[in-house]
Amino acid sequence: MSEIRHAIKNGEIILEENAVVNVTLSAVQSNFSVYEALRVLKRHVVHLDDHINRLYNSANSIHLPLPVVDWNNEINKLIKKDNIEDCTMRILVVGTDTPTWFITWTKLLTYPDSYYKEGVDVITYNGERFLPQSKTGNLLVNFLSREEAKRNNAFEALLVDRLGKILEGSRSNFYVLKGDTIKTAPDEKVLDGITRISVLRAGRELGYKIDYTSPSPEEIWSSDAIFISSTSMGAMPIRSVDGKKCPFDSDKVAAICSLVRKWECD
Amino acid sequence: MSEIRHAIKNGEIILEENAVVNVTLSAVQSNFSVYEALRVLKRHVVHLDDHINRLYNSANSIHLPLPVVDWNNEINKLIKKDNIEDCTMRILVVGTDTPTWFITWTKLLTYPDSYYKEGVDVITYNGERFLPQSKTGNLLVNFLSREEAKRNNAFEALLVDRLGKILEGSRSNFYVLKGDTIKTAPDEKVLDGITRISVLRAGRELGYKIDYTSPSPEEIWSSDAIFISSTSMGAMPIRSVDGKKCPFDSDKVAAICSLVRKWECD
Repeated sequence: MSEIRHAIKNGEIILEENAVVNVTLSAVQSNFSVYEALRVLKRHVVHLDDHINRLYNSANSIHLPLPVVDWNNEINKLIKKDNIEDCTMRILVVGTDTPTWFITWTKLLTYPDSYYKEGVDVITYNGERFLPQSKTGNLLVNFLSREEAKRNNAFEALLVDRLGKILEGSRSNFYVLKGDTIKTAPDEKVLDGITRISVLRAGRELGYKIDYTSPSPEEIWSSDAIFISSTSMGAMPIRSVDGKKCPFDSDKVAAICSLVRKWECD
Repeated sequence: MSEIRHAIKNGEIILEENAVVNVTLSAVQSNFSVYEALRVLKRHVVHLDDHINRLYNSANSIHLPLPVVDWNNEINKLIKKDNIEDCTMRILVVGTDTPTWFITWTKLLTYPDSYYKEGVDVITYNGERFLPQSKTGNLLVNFLSREEAKRNNAFEALLVDRLGKILEGSRSNFYVLKGDTIKTAPDEKVLDGITRISVLRAGRELGYKIDYTSPSPEEIWSSDAIFISSTSMGAMPIRSVDGKKCPFDSDKVAAICSLVRKWECD
């Protein structure tokens, strides 16, 4: 990989340090933006079409007029320019009438094996995302809940809605596995996670039924295992919630994660 | 006023075009920021102490470590540099550990006299602000509701919460005036508006009782007048809601507005 990092702005290769927006723009001041985070593995973008579809869906949901762009070509320009093998890539589109779009990248976000074998610690946090199905720039609740998790030495925060149900994590989807059933919030209440689709497909292939009901925190304690998923995490088991050890069966989660990761390379 | 506009970044005078933030920063991506909009009239900043207090309160509420700055001095540097008489000024502080702060300005936001005499049209919009008492950068619901208002040729959107109550406007506080009472949402549910404080003080001086209960949309139709307030608007009467003419008594609102504007010059 090259030393100086580049980015793409409206189709033009620029230095990453020039990937900036002016703070006097109303779209910048008001998070009138949509984004996607993608995995590039061996110079190949995982599930690109799904991410691009979601990007346009997110834009439509807030009336952001996203232009037609050959995203595959643009991403590959950046992969070539910076000689990238693996990375986490980010597409950001900032409104309004003539949106400005950026592609930037960072080192591939990966997690230690121990997270998958031993599970991660999470906290609960009272909060809900606005327009949960869309990936917009309106991310303060995600940021604050994650900071609260960090202050508690936890890896992730589970967002508990006004009805006391767990909808999703600050940057993940959430599942309760019990017997032959995987329970997760209904689609319309959470991010339409691309890894979530794979997780639920893997669950079905492994013989689980899917119950689209938002789980209550109390159900954690009578489950077999609980876990989270995201593009970067795959499926990751949880070992404690708010400092209390929870039921933990990493093998069951690992079986799901292994199918999810296999399909990424197809 | 000078032709080329300047701004201040962390105490340094820069060209406004250089008032930029990098889109790879997590604080920028997640609206981990707070702001204030101020009125400068005849080179004097209106209610500066109140705005600065609120800025620090907003920062505290999201654990943003805002440094001590001589804001009066910084604002006056910009007033001198660009030879500003009147303007709307904006302070923006973007986290995280070492926040970056900006002061920028635009032409003073004012409204035609007809808005105050004839009233403005508003719509209702289902939505609530996250952390309503704080002025954070998490503003998508404000932006989207205002865009929806524009599409309906309306001036403002009133945000209706999950319980069906009107809490505030997209950029204003909201009031229902009936008989000897002014009704407005309780402090903890809405922005701690600096003009709101003046409006309620003016209401009391004019003999009104203040009822801190979130009004229902139905109460609009049996009121004497409804109105909104903000730093730029003062107190502004509403003449229609969702396309339907509403009770309208601009004299009562004008009496309040005139006290609010008088105190700005004290």
